Amino acid sequence: MQVERGRTREVGDMPPVLAETTRGGRVESVHHGIIAVVDGAGRLVAHAGDPDRVAFFRSSAKPFQAIPVVESGAADAFGFTPAELALCCASHNGERRHQTQVAAMLAKIGLGPEALRCGASLPSDPMERARVVAGLVPPSPLQCDCSGKHTGMLAACVRLGYPLDSYLEPAHPLQRQILAIMGEVLGLDEGEIALGTDGCSLPTFGAPLRAFAAAYAALAAPERVAAGRGGAHAAALDRLRRAMTAHPENVAGQGELVSDLMRLSDGRIAAKSGAEGLICLALPEAGLGVAIRVLDGTFRAHTVVVAAVLEQLGLIEPAVIAAILDAHPPVLRNHNGWEIGALRPAFRLQ
Amino acid sequence: MQVERGRTREVGDMPPVLAETTRGGRVESVHHGIIAVVDGAGRLVAHAGDPDRVAFFRSSAKPFQAIPVVESGAADAFGFTPAELALCCASHNGERRHQTQVAAMLAKIGLGPEALRCGASLPSDPMERARVVAGLVPPSPLQCDCSGKHTGMLAACVRLGYPLDSYLEPAHPLQRQILAIMGEVLGLDEGEIALGTDGCSLPTFGAPLRAFAAAYAALAAPERVAAGRGGAHAAALDRLRRAMTAHPENVAGQGELVSDLMRLSDGRIAAKSGAEGLICLALPEAGLGVAIRVLDGTFRAHTVVVAAVLEQLGLIEPAVIAAILDAHPPVLRNHNGWEIGALRPAFRLQ
Repeated sequence: MQVERGRTREVGDMPPVLAETTRGGRVESVHHGIIAVVDGAGRLVAHAGDPDRVAFFRSSAKPFQAIPVVESGAADAFGFTPAELALCCASHNGERRHQTQVAAMLAKIGLGPEALRCGASLPSDPMERARVVAGLVPPSPLQCDCSGKHTGMLAACVRLGYPLDSYLEPAHPLQRQILAIMGEVLGLDEGEIALGTDGCSLPTFGAPLRAFAAAYAALAAPERVAAGRGGAHAAALDRLRRAMTAHPENVAGQGELVSDLMRLSDGRIAAKSGAEGLICLALPEAGLGVAIRVLDGTFRAHTVVVAAVLEQLGLIEPAVIAAILDAHPPVLRNHNGWEIGALRPAFRLQ
Repeated sequence: MQVERGRTREVGDMPPVLAETTRGGRVESVHHGIIAVVDGAGRLVAHAGDPDRVAFFRSSAKPFQAIPVVESGAADAFGFTPAELALCCASHNGERRHQTQVAAMLAKIGLGPEALRCGASLPSDPMERARVVAGLVPPSPLQCDCSGKHTGMLAACVRLGYPLDSYLEPAHPLQRQILAIMGEVLGLDEGEIALGTDGCSLPTFGAPLRAFAAAYAALAAPERVAAGRGGAHAAALDRLRRAMTAHPENVAGQGELVSDLMRLSDGRIAAKSGAEGLICLALPEAGLGVAIRVLDGTFRAHTVVVAAVLEQLGLIEPAVIAAILDAHPPVLRNHNGWEIGALRPAFRLQ
C-alpha cells in the first residue's frame, strides 16, 4: 500500500456521501467518507470511496497499543481484570465508575494519577463534565478518555523496567515496540506509517484506511491471520477483544454507539471509535475488519452508516441491527422534541 | 432560481473542499462546502461550488424575521433599545446577561418566559450550561439561543393584536407576513421556498445558497436595492443591521466568531450564523452579501473560510483579517496544549 499515493488523493478525489440529514423532507447536510472491509489476509472485500486514502488511526489504535500490556506480563503481574483490560483499549466517557477503576489500576502498579501524561481533558459524560466546568469536581487526568490506555502503558513500563517519565515520546522503548506492532497489524513497513501527535500526546499512526480494516480483521480472528500480520500477537489480541466485548461499558460508556454495538450483538461485533470521525469494527465470526471514516471528523452519521454496512454485508442478523437503530434512533428532534428530520445512509458498498 | 434544480444537485455533484485540518503535516479532515457572493441586484459576484444548491436559512434568517418587530411599531412602542433589537436577530449563547435582557424585553411587553414556545435548550455558554446540567440553575426558555427572536415575534404579535399562543405556526398571520418578506429578500416566489421546521419550532426556509447571499446584500445596503428585493424594508433593515453591529456581543456572545467579526471590523461586517454550518455576512460599504455553507453542518472551518473570502474579495483591510485570525487562531491543540495541527482554507473563489 502506497502511503504517498494515498496522500496525493487526499484533496484531489471526491469521496462519496456516506450519510445525509434531512429537514422538511429535503437533504440538509451531508457526510462524505470512506469505508473499507478487509479480510484476515489483507484483501479488500468491500469498500465505498478510495480505501487507499490516508487517515490517522487515533483511538481506534488502542486495542493494538494495549498488546504490550498483555505480552509484557504486566496484565497478569498486576492482576488486571478483563474490565480493566477493556479500559486499556478505551476512549471512556470519564464517568465516575471509569475514573474509579483507572485509579484502582494505577494503585495496583504503585502509581497515582500524577503519573499520567495524557492531560486533563473534560469528561464526555454530561453530568461529570458539568461538575468539572462548574468547579464542583477538580480536573484530573483520570477524567481524560485516554487515562486507561495511559495506565496500561505505565503498567507495561513498570513491568519492563522502562522509564516512566518519558513514556509518551516516540523514541521511548515502549513506543518503538508499539510502532513495530502497528507495522505488523497494518501490513506496512514502519517507514510507511505517517506519524502525528494524538489528543493525549502519544504518537498516532497515519495509514491508508484499508490498513485499519486489516488490523481489525486481525483483532477479529487473530488465530487465523499470518504471524507477520498480527498472528504473532494472537493470544493478546484474543484476550483484549474478549475483554472489550465482555465490558463494552468500559470501552466508551453509557449510551455510546461503540458500547451498544458490542452489548447488543453479544460480542459478535467488537467496536472502537477514533477521533475525527473514525469507527472500526471487528467481526470475529467472519474474520473481517471494517474501517469507516467520516471525512469531516464528525460522529453523528456513524449509527446509520454502521447499520447499513452490517446490513449490506449480511453477516449480522437483522434483529441485532434493528436493536442498534432502536437504541440510537436516526431521527433529528428539535428543542421541543418535535421530529424535524432524519439521518439516513446514502452509499452502496462495492 | 430553480429550487428543484438545486435539489437534484444535492447528492449528485461534488462540492469543493473549503477547509482542511492537518496533523503531523498531513491533511486529516476536510470540510466540503459552498460559497456565494451576491450584489444588491442579485447578481453572483463570486462563488465556490454550486451556488444553486439548496440549503436552509436557519438562524441566518433572523435579521429578516425581525423586520416586523420594527415595521409593526412594536420596537418603538415597547421601547426596545438597539441592544434589545440585536437580541431579536441573535443566536445568543445563553449567558446570564442575555437571559436577563430577554426577560426585561418580555417584561416590557407584559409577558413572562412562559409565553416563549422555543423550548428550553441548553445554553452554549460553557459555565451556564454546566450550571443547568448540574442542576444549579433550572432550565428556562430564556436560555434558548432563539429566545430573543421569539420575544421580538411576541412583541410584534402584541402590537398587531395577533394571537400569542399560535405564533409558531406557519399559518399564523405573523409567519405569513415573514414568509412574504423572505420571498422578497431571497428573490423567490413564496412557492419556491421550501419549508422545514427549525430547532426552535419556527418555520425555516429552504432556498439556493445564492438567495441567502442576496438577502445579506439587502441587509448590507438596503437603500441601494430594489423595493421588491428588500428595499421596501430599507429603514427596518438598516436599523437592525446597525443594532447588530453596535451590540455584537448580543448577536452571539463571548468569544464567538460572529460577534468578533462585527466587533473587530467596527461594523464594516455584519455577520450571523445559522445551524448546520451556515454563516452569512453583509458588507455595507460594498453592498455585498456573502453566504457560506459547510455541508457537513459543522462550524470549526468558519474562521479560516471567512478570512479567506474577505482576503480574496479584497474589501476588508488585512489588519482586520489578521485581528480576526488572532482572536480565533486556526491551530489545533491537544489536551496538553501542544499544537498538533492546523485549520487552513482550501478554495479559490471563482
